[in-house]
Amino acid sequence: MNRAQSRTVYLVGAGPGSLDLLTLRAHALISSATCLLHDDLVSPQVLSLAASEALVRNVGKRCGQKKITQEEINAWMVQYAQEGHSVVRLKSGDPLLFGRAAEEIAALTEAAVPFEVIPGVSTGFAAAALAGLPLTGRIGSSRVLFATRHLAAGSTSGLTGITPEASLVLYMPGGDYAGIAHELTANGWPQNTRCALVSSLGSDAQHLVGCTLRDLPDTPRQPSPVVMLFFAPGRDEPSQTFSSEK
Amino acid sequence: MNRAQSRTVYLVGAGPGSLDLLTLRAHALISSATCLLHDDLVSPQVLSLAASEALVRNVGKRCGQKKITQEEINAWMVQYAQEGHSVVRLKSGDPLLFGRAAEEIAALTEAAVPFEVIPGVSTGFAAAALAGLPLTGRIGSSRVLFATRHLAAGSTSGLTGITPEASLVLYMPGGDYAGIAHELTANGWPQNTRCALVSSLGSDAQHLVGCTLRDLPDTPRQPSPVVMLFFAPGRDEPSQTFSSEK
Repeated sequence: MNRAQSRTVYLVGAGPGSLDLLTLRAHALISSATCLLHDDLVSPQVLSLAASEALVRNVGKRCGQKKITQEEINAWMVQYAQEGHSVVRLKSGDPLLFGRAAEEIAALTEAAVPFEVIPGVSTGFAAAALAGLPLTGRIGSSRVLFATRHLAAGSTSGLTGITPEASLVLYMPGGDYAGIAHELTANGWPQNTRCALVSSLGSDAQHLVGCTLRDLPDTPRQPSPVVMLFFAPGRDEPSQTFSSEK
Repeated sequence: MNRAQSRTVYLVGAGPGSLDLLTLRAHALISSATCLLHDDLVSPQVLSLAASEALVRNVGKRCGQKKITQEEINAWMVQYAQEGHSVVRLKSGDPLLFGRAAEEIAALTEAAVPFEVIPGVSTGFAAAALAGLPLTGRIGSSRVLFATRHLAAGSTSGLTGITPEASLVLYMPGGDYAGIAHELTANGWPQNTRCALVSSLGSDAQHLVGCTLRDLPDTPRQPSPVVMLFFAPGRDEPSQTFSSEK
C-alpha cells in the first residue's frame, strides 16, 4: 500500500491449520505479502494463499536437512523489510506462544524495523473446540495452564509443579505418554482425569482421542503434531464425553 | 444450506472485538445466522455483521436491568434451533474460556441439538500482541496461566497459588490493583515484574498501560473490560519496553 506498510514486519498467527480459522487480518496480510517466512507447522492450505510472485521460505528449524539458525531468520526479516518487502513472519497458532518471538522482536527493534503482531487462534483452543470440552467450568477449575514439554532450547522439560488446580494444555508433548501420566499422577492428578489428544489439527488427518489419565500410557501414540488436554477435576462437565470427531 | 446446518447451534468465538481478528468461519456464521444470542462484551462491529432480518438478542448477564438466567439462555438456544433457526451463540474471545459453555453444551446435548464450537482469538493473546510482548520466552518461563478474579458464580476469587513459574494472563481483574499486587507479591512475584494492562481491546478506546508490579497499586484504574498481563521473570526479553500503542 504505502511505504510505511511495505517495511513493517508482521508477526502473524496462522492459527491451527485450516483456512477457516485464520483471522481476516492474517488472510489479508498473507495474501498480499511479498515475502513469507514460515515455520514447519504452518499448513499447506494457509501457504496456498501466498501470491504467486511472493518469496515463500520455510525457515522451520525442525526440517532436519538444512540447519537454519535463529540468527539467520532474524537477519532475513530485517534484510527483506529493509529492501522494501512486505514481510510476513508466519507462525502456527498464536505467534507469541512457544515461538522464538522474543528474539525476533529484539532483532527487529535493534534494527529499527517496525513490527506488528497479529494474534491467532492457538492450537489448544482449537483442540478444545474439536473435543467440545470447555477449558474452564463454573464449578471447579477456573484456570488453564499452557505448557510444553519441548522447550525451544531443544531439551525436554519435566512437568514439575503442574498440579490439578488448573486445566492443562500441553503442547509438543512428545511420545512418552507413560512418563507424562507418571509425572502428572505424582503431582496429584487423579487417575480418572479426562484427557483429550488431538493430532494433525486442521489437516485431513485430524484426529481426536479421548481417554483418562489411567489409560494414557496404553493409548496408541498419535502422529505429530499433538496437543494434549487435561481437564482439572471438579469442573462442571457436560453429560456427553466428546462431540463427534470431524 | 441444508437441514442439518440450519439446526446446529454454533458456539462461536467473536475474538477480542475488531472485525480484523474474527476468523473467516466466525465471519461467515455470524453473517448467515438467523438467530444471534450474544454476550455483553461482543463488540458492535462484530454485531454489525448480522443480517438485517436476523433475530439478535443480547443475553449478557451483566446488563443489570433485565435478569437473564443461564437456564433461559439454554432454553432459547434449544428452542430456536428446534424451530429451524441457524443459531449462533456468540461469546467474546474464545467460547470455551471463562464462559458458561459447559452448561450450554450440557443443555444442547440433553435436548439432542447438535452443536459445533468455533474457537476464537482469546483476548489475552490479543493483549500480548498489542503490547508486543511474547507470553513465553526461550529462557525462563515456558508456561502461561490464564486465570480470572471474577468467577462465573459472581464471587471474586483470590490469586491463591499463582506463582511466577508461569506468565499470568488475568481476565476480569476488577479494580483492586493494590490487592492484586499484594497477593502476587506474597506469592513470590518480584517487584520489578513487568505488567501490561489493556483496556477496551478492539474498540476505539483501546488502551495499553505498561508498569511494574511495584507501580501497579498507583496505576490509574482503567475502564472495563481490562486484561492484565504479568510476565514471569527470567524471560528472554526484547530490548524495547512496549510497541507503540494503537
